[in-house]
Amino acid sequence: MPSNLPDSVFSPRSVAVVGASSNPDSPGHDYVKAIIEAGFTGPLYPINPRAPEIMGLPAYPALSAAPGDVDLVISCIPADGVLALIEEARAKRATTLHLFTGRFSETGDRDAAALEQRVKQAARDAGIRIIGPNCMGVFDARSGLSFRPDLPRADGGDVAFISQSGNNSVELMLHGAARGLRFSKVVSYGNALDLSEADFLDFLAADDATRVVGAYIEGATDGRRLLDALRSCAAAKPVVVLKGGRTGAGSRTAASHTAALAGQRQVWSAVLKQAGAVEVETFDDLIDMLVAFAFLRPGAGTNVGVVGGGGGRAVQSADVCEEAGLRVPRLPGAIRAMLREKAPHLADWVDNPVDQSILAGSGVSGARVLEMMLDAPEFDALIANVGEDWVLGRPDAIERMAHLVDRFAAIGVKADKPMAFVLGPADSPDETKWRAVEGGKQRLTDARLAVYPSVDRAASAVARFVRFHAGRA
Amino acid sequence: MPSNLPDSVFSPRSVAVVGASSNPDSPGHDYVKAIIEAGFTGPLYPINPRAPEIMGLPAYPALSAAPGDVDLVISCIPADGVLALIEEARAKRATTLHLFTGRFSETGDRDAAALEQRVKQAARDAGIRIIGPNCMGVFDARSGLSFRPDLPRADGGDVAFISQSGNNSVELMLHGAARGLRFSKVVSYGNALDLSEADFLDFLAADDATRVVGAYIEGATDGRRLLDALRSCAAAKPVVVLKGGRTGAGSRTAASHTAALAGQRQVWSAVLKQAGAVEVETFDDLIDMLVAFAFLRPGAGTNVGVVGGGGGRAVQSADVCEEAGLRVPRLPGAIRAMLREKAPHLADWVDNPVDQSILAGSGVSGARVLEMMLDAPEFDALIANVGEDWVLGRPDAIERMAHLVDRFAAIGVKADKPMAFVLGPADSPDETKWRAVEGGKQRLTDARLAVYPSVDRAASAVARFVRFHAGRA
Repeated sequence: MPSNLPDSVFSPRSVAVVGASSNPDSPGHDYVKAIIEAGFTGPLYPINPRAPEIMGLPAYPALSAAPGDVDLVISCIPADGVLALIEEARAKRATTLHLFTGRFSETGDRDAAALEQRVKQAARDAGIRIIGPNCMGVFDARSGLSFRPDLPRADGGDVAFISQSGNNSVELMLHGAARGLRFSKVVSYGNALDLSEADFLDFLAADDATRVVGAYIEGATDGRRLLDALRSCAAAKPVVVLKGGRTGAGSRTAASHTAALAGQRQVWSAVLKQAGAVEVETFDDLIDMLVAFAFLRPGAGTNVGVVGGGGGRAVQSADVCEEAGLRVPRLPGAIRAMLREKAPHLADWVDNPVDQSILAGSGVSGARVLEMMLDAPEFDALIANVGEDWVLGRPDAIERMAHLVDRFAAIGVKADKPMAFVLGPADSPDETKWRAVEGGKQRLTDARLAVYPSVDRAASAVARFVRFHAGRA
Repeated sequence: MPSNLPDSVFSPRSVAVVGASSNPDSPGHDYVKAIIEAGFTGPLYPINPRAPEIMGLPAYPALSAAPGDVDLVISCIPADGVLALIEEARAKRATTLHLFTGRFSETGDRDAAALEQRVKQAARDAGIRIIGPNCMGVFDARSGLSFRPDLPRADGGDVAFISQSGNNSVELMLHGAARGLRFSKVVSYGNALDLSEADFLDFLAADDATRVVGAYIEGATDGRRLLDALRSCAAAKPVVVLKGGRTGAGSRTAASHTAALAGQRQVWSAVLKQAGAVEVETFDDLIDMLVAFAFLRPGAGTNVGVVGGGGGRAVQSADVCEEAGLRVPRLPGAIRAMLREKAPHLADWVDNPVDQSILAGSGVSGARVLEMMLDAPEFDALIANVGEDWVLGRPDAIERMAHLVDRFAAIGVKADKPMAFVLGPADSPDETKWRAVEGGKQRLTDARLAVYPSVDRAASAVARFVRFHAGRA
């Protein structure tokens, strides 16, 4: 279904922030700062009855005082001012109103819910679409929209995320960025009073800046429409969905968060499956699968080759891979022949997963075996354990890690099968170790490679990724 | 069964490191440095045929040249020198030989396996017990033994860990330390040629410095003895076991790692269950459960109160808690009455899990609700979400986080029911954010509180912890 969003949602020519503020600890400040820093080039009008200027821009006492038309109005004012704001917005020919403003139906208060309905009707009468209420709104890499100054910059982002939760949209962007994800468009849409997840999915299905779509959804106002939207979006690109409110308590909590009707878990799982979307159950899972779809080369086979780390890591890698549904075949003849030539005493010892500590001093590196695994038809997918703590405890840990990562990354960029890297977690209170791991991660993600903080998370993501592609084949 | 370990395993009066080295990038250097820095007070003899001194200590060309008796001999020399070393060790009245030395039966090579058996027999004839071969050996907080200079210091450690993998012992200590774990004793025992996991479990069962035991085990040489040892140890204190080699490929890999006979997964799970040990499946799980047993107050009830984070986090918290087997009841009358008095417009909106963003500006803090939950008989366990990224993106993030953590920690130290904190992950490439999260974690772990990097990991650990206690009741 073609998108019915006005251009002003993602590509407004002009923006007003109503309730803009000079207080650096307020949302009214964050929107102005974030939009300036995101590089929005059209007119941006801070609206504040008392401030003559905000962040170097002239401010206006009311929306009606802004000098030109305003495409997109962002509201940070209290709920009781929104009806009047809609009248002003209509006069300014606005076509989209984003309500950061909350305290509507999600409060469970009858008057607040009634006001929300009046807002909905007034906006409809004014020809204005609503994002929200009770949400962070829109991040758009191309047009320079953003909702927080500390969000990652948008170089080359092709992952989109829609979220019924504002905090989840921020956390996904920040923790996703630490894993190399860059975003084309992000929408936090809150109570979905007017524009809903289905509208955004329709838009993203056709959005040529977006290659992968993630979603955090608490409820659907129209289940049939959502299924259609999911189906058409998932037909165009991978869609990964975290459903909030899967349990009794979760569903009750969703109602008080975004007034969402969470629905039955089994129904949701069936809908997501039918639509061809990938369902995940935790926030970490959501990031892991977005990383998989963003960075792994396509592939549907389950035979995995694993390299790196010592013997304990090799054993665990084998276990978690097989438990995730992958197969861990023995080394094929070609690799064994190479070992027999270069390191004959190890040729019958080393196997898949490759225990790198066995290879130490042999003249055959783990990277060399990984390279041969890449060429070997016996392997459909690869997992490379890059960092174990022995590296981090050595002198020159940062340089060593960088060197090790570069050798592995050079193979990763050549890969024509799914290849995941394991490095981390960077949870050390020791600054050198943190820098070594973060530096290594940065090198891998700069090369657009998929990095996971543990081998079990890598195995799980690769297994689900190849199952997805097998299902498509 | 009483332990049959000689004192020289954990409390040697004197130690020799054979193959000691001045090269800071070698194990022979690490042992000397680690033991000095761990505060070992007895004579420590570096043995090296060419160096007159190592790390400020006089070095000796051969073990036989050391001036006094030697209780514990640590061998970093190649396998073919070990038989001769045993003769020297016998002459020095040594009673324990730790073989860091590897390349024995784990290679799959027949001659190497035969040599290993000759080593076993020679040591037995000499009255010397063997730790290893192919392992890191012993860390002991009281006696000042250590195997790597970068291991955490041992202030007040009461968690013991035995590991068939050397790298796993290092990784468990480092990543565990980042979660606040401090260790009484750690043993990496490799091929278990002589002293086995059963010997160490027997010892730890009776060790008054040890309150919680973790284990990474690949295989058992004597299943019956292991079951007995597990049972007696688990009767004395919580025992958490990660079994390596659960799958076909994992078991094959374990054989080439420590020559272990991994055995069938179902058999192991049954044995662990029968013994009263807690089985875990990943390294992260192992740390999470050790943190639970080290820091959570005992409790067997499943009704959990959850505080903190915004609405999306609240919904997810409810879902993962219920899916882990906990119950998330609604707020009880007493807390609702307090809300009705202090923040009447929120009293029918806020619920459990508590969406802290709703409370903002109301005069009622999340910490206040948490405190009331602690007193409320309706809640058996608590989970506090401390950090969400909105905190980390604000000005003065480090101070804000510290302040927030301190308020929560003050409640945590008073808790008489299991209470877990969620903070992290500290995976940001941004130094301020990393410092804010690591600083907050440090404050919580300094107060001996249980911290988890995600709410799903906290929920899973709390659920297994209360099930463990329910099973005991």
